[in-house]
Amino acid sequence: MWEKARRLMPGGTQLLSKRSERFLPGQWPAFYSRAKGCSIWDLNDRHYYDFAQMGVGSCALGYADDAVNAAVIKAVSDGSMSSLNVPESIELTERLVDLHSYSDMACYTRSGGEAASLAVRIGRATSGKDKVAFCGYHGWHDWYLASNLANEHNLDEQLLPGLNPLGVPKCLSGTAIPFRYNHLDDLIKITNEHDDIGVIIMEPCRSEEPAEGFLEGVRLLADKIGAVLIFDEITSGFRVNLGGIHLTYNVEPDIALFGKALGNGYPICAILGKRSVMEVAENSFISSTFWTEKIGFVAAIATLKQMDNIKAQKFMVRHGENITDIWNSSAKTHGLDIHVGGIAPLTHISFNCDEPLAVMTLYAQEMLDKGYLLGSAVYSTSSYTDEIIEKFGMATDEIFSLISHAIKSESVLSRLKGGIIQTAFKRLA
Amino acid sequence: MWEKARRLMPGGTQLLSKRSERFLPGQWPAFYSRAKGCSIWDLNDRHYYDFAQMGVGSCALGYADDAVNAAVIKAVSDGSMSSLNVPESIELTERLVDLHSYSDMACYTRSGGEAASLAVRIGRATSGKDKVAFCGYHGWHDWYLASNLANEHNLDEQLLPGLNPLGVPKCLSGTAIPFRYNHLDDLIKITNEHDDIGVIIMEPCRSEEPAEGFLEGVRLLADKIGAVLIFDEITSGFRVNLGGIHLTYNVEPDIALFGKALGNGYPICAILGKRSVMEVAENSFISSTFWTEKIGFVAAIATLKQMDNIKAQKFMVRHGENITDIWNSSAKTHGLDIHVGGIAPLTHISFNCDEPLAVMTLYAQEMLDKGYLLGSAVYSTSSYTDEIIEKFGMATDEIFSLISHAIKSESVLSRLKGGIIQTAFKRLA
Repeated sequence: MWEKARRLMPGGTQLLSKRSERFLPGQWPAFYSRAKGCSIWDLNDRHYYDFAQMGVGSCALGYADDAVNAAVIKAVSDGSMSSLNVPESIELTERLVDLHSYSDMACYTRSGGEAASLAVRIGRATSGKDKVAFCGYHGWHDWYLASNLANEHNLDEQLLPGLNPLGVPKCLSGTAIPFRYNHLDDLIKITNEHDDIGVIIMEPCRSEEPAEGFLEGVRLLADKIGAVLIFDEITSGFRVNLGGIHLTYNVEPDIALFGKALGNGYPICAILGKRSVMEVAENSFISSTFWTEKIGFVAAIATLKQMDNIKAQKFMVRHGENITDIWNSSAKTHGLDIHVGGIAPLTHISFNCDEPLAVMTLYAQEMLDKGYLLGSAVYSTSSYTDEIIEKFGMATDEIFSLISHAIKSESVLSRLKGGIIQTAFKRLA
Repeated sequence: MWEKARRLMPGGTQLLSKRSERFLPGQWPAFYSRAKGCSIWDLNDRHYYDFAQMGVGSCALGYADDAVNAAVIKAVSDGSMSSLNVPESIELTERLVDLHSYSDMACYTRSGGEAASLAVRIGRATSGKDKVAFCGYHGWHDWYLASNLANEHNLDEQLLPGLNPLGVPKCLSGTAIPFRYNHLDDLIKITNEHDDIGVIIMEPCRSEEPAEGFLEGVRLLADKIGAVLIFDEITSGFRVNLGGIHLTYNVEPDIALFGKALGNGYPICAILGKRSVMEVAENSFISSTFWTEKIGFVAAIATLKQMDNIKAQKFMVRHGENITDIWNSSAKTHGLDIHVGGIAPLTHISFNCDEPLAVMTLYAQEMLDKGYLLGSAVYSTSSYTDEIIEKFGMATDEIFSLISHAIKSESVLSRLKGGIIQTAFKRLA
């Protein structure tokens, strides 16, 4: 089936992070039939617990959440599209504005990349300056990949080294300039060298916490040069608190982007911002039919309500911490040298050894055999239970023991039933 | 409520075509509570028949179609997102490839603008040339609005005069060059003047039929200069036949785009093309989480099946022809000079008189009073019945009589209860 998919769709799937080669080449159950909570059933109805990505971070409440689904099914039954507008778009905006006191207005898309493009359009329109300084991952669109036109290694310090800008107009070269996380000096240098930086876009936190003064420094710099500051919270939003993670750092952007967890798996992304910036959107042509469909809005409203009701973030953080503890303690028990990083609800593991990817492959292979989908990064979900985490811990401990023996006996590669995990985009192309 | 919407969202809605000012300023029921077939109920539960846009052309089978909704509700209940892939994405691709014999592969987005951007990326990547010649409407993205950077009147012969490219990087100036529909000479001139046209993108048919040899000429020219030819069928697809309207003209593009009618209101757009072009997409970074969600795929599969089962296009064309006939015969009866254009399932009306927009406003105002949502363009739906069309005809006849008297007595303006329809983007900003 995966081979057929690769014949019919470029890459076999629309999402890099859902390519089987990234998890377990030749062994990964590429397709699913149904999903509920943190459980997924493949096309042969085999059950797995998801310790990989929980829908690439989109299903923080768990798959097919009852409260969210009830709202979606009502919207579907009532007709989720018409020639008139969806009042729930206003209700969702009021809720997001309420959660982020500095904001006044919102608009919405159905993909994160498009949300970032829209925000950059607004930022350029507001500042009247075309260049963008960025940090982190912001999707596939031209404005972002343009960075790799100038220097093919420009994105190497970002999340996805080797991003190929093939088909991005060459005249965009030099319009997007990366800076490193927690390196305010990078950004100062960029603003000294370029007097036309109109937009600063960054993930306020992804795999490490901001250093003291970093986000504050970025905010001051943006004000100083007259740039619009965008926090891309498509990944980080609603994961440790009910809102953008920037609320916990007390630094206000001009625009915040949300996606992924916002609709618990139903496509909806928000561009939320201050009126002075957002109202400029009315003066540029920005319009799409499908942005006005109802499901995304009701799913987001229901998701925020349910997150609040069950204090979802508390559980996501706790389960994430427990996973981290399991990795650390089992590694210690079995003498494995590992690195664990990220924030609690988005934690990741890597092995410090000769063949780190082969060892990670062996871990994923053996976990799959025990009924777990495992990735090197785990998005936590409130649908995990302490029992499931405990079972995950026992399975991990058993496999870490096996890995320890395999490393000592130099039999890691011979134990693999398929290829080694492919991490870089380059290797997949 | 509409005023509140304008405070909370730029323009009050995400879609230009859903702004109340475009239909009946001050009187239009901006929001809806539910929709079924060709019926819409507003927030006061007042019922209307939709003779405006049927979800801006997205709901060809009618709102909340039972067959499509059954498939969607099953997908929702089974979990529409997971860490694994959706087998229905492969099934839909097989179906689209089957309907378009020249095609081999597809990828998908959740908005038409993003689909066009993706296709242009693939086109530029394939040809290795950055300039785009275009005809028609292709959304809000930078590559397209760049046209208005070079010359603010460049898009005036396209569908939306006054499109504002505010926030589009100025270095893109000159990268998108418009040509007029049925003017092959325009395109010949462009290709003579620019040796780096890598992409030709156009609507193969929208408001008029292609002249003999026009599409064939475009195809030959694309081959001659080594450009990728994209037919944007987001509006025209699945409206007169089960597939792209280009199938009826026997001209094959390299890539065809579908959206709107494809999922009967559920967001899903397809980029369908030849392997030689589509597989280039693997070498450029193109990826999005929400593109992999299940609803769009199952909605499209169910829509295509239902369209085939009930021969939906036959009814869409017939009802559209009947609406056109009603306009023409009532206008004749009451001595009104009108222009009716477009293709049968997407027909439009305008009045030839001193204050054409005021007269159109009066028509819409009086129709609203009788329980019809009316726009100057009507997207047909198979959910119309002969009885509903007949009632629409009687209402129109009565109002055309009134309009005729109003024009003669110069009382059109005094009969309006609100403002006159605003058509151009410029006036709304």
